[in-house]
Amino acid sequence: MQPINIAIAGFGKIARDQHLPAIQADPNYRLVAIADPHASLSGVPNFPSLDALLENLPELDAVALCTPPQLRHSQACQALAAGKHVMLEKPPGATLSEVEDIKASATRANRSLFASWHSRYAPAVGHAAAWLSERRIERVNIEWKEDVRHWHPGQTWLWEPGGMGVFDPGINALSIATAILPRPFFLQTASLSVPENCQTPIAASLTFSDRDGLPIGAEFDFLQTGPQTWDIHVDTSVGRMTLAQGGSQLWIDDKLEYEGKDREYPGLYERFSQLIRTGQSDVDVTPLRHVADAFLNGRRTVAAPFSDSA
Amino acid sequence: MQPINIAIAGFGKIARDQHLPAIQADPNYRLVAIADPHASLSGVPNFPSLDALLENLPELDAVALCTPPQLRHSQACQALAAGKHVMLEKPPGATLSEVEDIKASATRANRSLFASWHSRYAPAVGHAAAWLSERRIERVNIEWKEDVRHWHPGQTWLWEPGGMGVFDPGINALSIATAILPRPFFLQTASLSVPENCQTPIAASLTFSDRDGLPIGAEFDFLQTGPQTWDIHVDTSVGRMTLAQGGSQLWIDDKLEYEGKDREYPGLYERFSQLIRTGQSDVDVTPLRHVADAFLNGRRTVAAPFSDSA
Repeated sequence: MQPINIAIAGFGKIARDQHLPAIQADPNYRLVAIADPHASLSGVPNFPSLDALLENLPELDAVALCTPPQLRHSQACQALAAGKHVMLEKPPGATLSEVEDIKASATRANRSLFASWHSRYAPAVGHAAAWLSERRIERVNIEWKEDVRHWHPGQTWLWEPGGMGVFDPGINALSIATAILPRPFFLQTASLSVPENCQTPIAASLTFSDRDGLPIGAEFDFLQTGPQTWDIHVDTSVGRMTLAQGGSQLWIDDKLEYEGKDREYPGLYERFSQLIRTGQSDVDVTPLRHVADAFLNGRRTVAAPFSDSA
Repeated sequence: MQPINIAIAGFGKIARDQHLPAIQADPNYRLVAIADPHASLSGVPNFPSLDALLENLPELDAVALCTPPQLRHSQACQALAAGKHVMLEKPPGATLSEVEDIKASATRANRSLFASWHSRYAPAVGHAAAWLSERRIERVNIEWKEDVRHWHPGQTWLWEPGGMGVFDPGINALSIATAILPRPFFLQTASLSVPENCQTPIAASLTFSDRDGLPIGAEFDFLQTGPQTWDIHVDTSVGRMTLAQGGSQLWIDDKLEYEGKDREYPGLYERFSQLIRTGQSDVDVTPLRHVADAFLNGRRTVAAPFSDSA
């Protein structure tokens, strides 16, 4: 099979750290260009904009959009209209409404659209889903607690409208939970703690339920120092399953059952190539919809002002 | 044709003022019961709960759910699972996620589900859509400004999480705009003014765009005294159309072209009976999704405390 000629638009940190090596290691792809007004990569053509890329590289098949969410909609629609397949970094857009429009653009263009949720490709996620599919689930507790000053130094956009605050990592937990639990669930209550100098929450406490009344709790915290926690605990009738370390470890009743090495982005690119080869799209807005529901229904409390250096 | 045996669940103000007369005037329906723990209606059986209604009235075909949004999901799923068609007052749920689940319940039960947006059935809305469909639209301005103290006295739930504040009327404007404009649109910016003693906005200033870059502005205000404003202005290449007074008047360049009398709820019930007769559902979450997008991406500013009596 011919490799897929792919370009990366938006060559920032996540593109360099994750997308580039995943593409280079996958024989399904040939990286043919980078589009970024500021960053560049040697060995391939570099274009200052998506416009220039689409105009000058007719052999291009697909674009990985790693630009900020605010640019996703117009760029995705532009690339699709030019006949390119599109992969979107998470979240797939700044608003739910524009993601619907991107989906419509993909349908009109008859091209593959992949709204990627990288955490779903963490090594133990599939094992967790399989294990849970055969058990009766009684309770779910999500704990996603990290130190924003360590992981996101200087990322002031997190605190601006649309930056989502602690939901930027929290949406990864929701992308896993929506993938491993057997039924859709929906928000019951949300408590959002917002620093008085910020627009978005620094901590959130959420409860969800599904149609069978399953209690699901989630605690998101951006001020966790010491050990960092990215765990989902699921109590079942035969014991407790814990998906730990962001989906890389599967524990059953305090025994490590499975641990795999990180291949989230290779997994995403494998999926994207399958979608392209089979003429399909994969656009699941569920995680972003949960975040929007929490902002719509959350009770806000004012927290101490946040400073990166405090 | 046999009339549809319908019951009203939640017999509050909107049910008594609008749903009851619409059902009584429509030969497609026979009102067979009321379910409400507090309110009652003479001449038909009254049940204290939806449970009791579903258990004791096997001949029931359909339920109009006029209960608060917080109860919609469980009640709708319960009625659908019992084989009843369901009409939902606006908004169709407290969260977008639970509306998806109600849709899935309707599909499983093979029953009609109607998420109603009453303002779409205002008399001039269809005329406005038809007129616009043949013109080139250049700009849209929505002005939805009313006095909350006059129209919503004592409705403290408006200011609680999920109460939506000024978006409670504003969503009516969005339900009309999404029905009369030719293409989907999506939020660009939102500014939300939230009284310091409330959880939800008392005023909002929104900008939207569609894929062709159409500029759409919306001003929602809950503190309008004097003349009340529920207008949508659409500038086209051949003049300005104004849909005024909540959709009851159509003006073209300051000339009143059409005015009809209110039959929003009769229109809703006509639509619901068609859906039931043809085995279809009509669930458009677009207006609620715009509100969620605005809460997700809005910039909040603190406004003076609100008091009903001030």
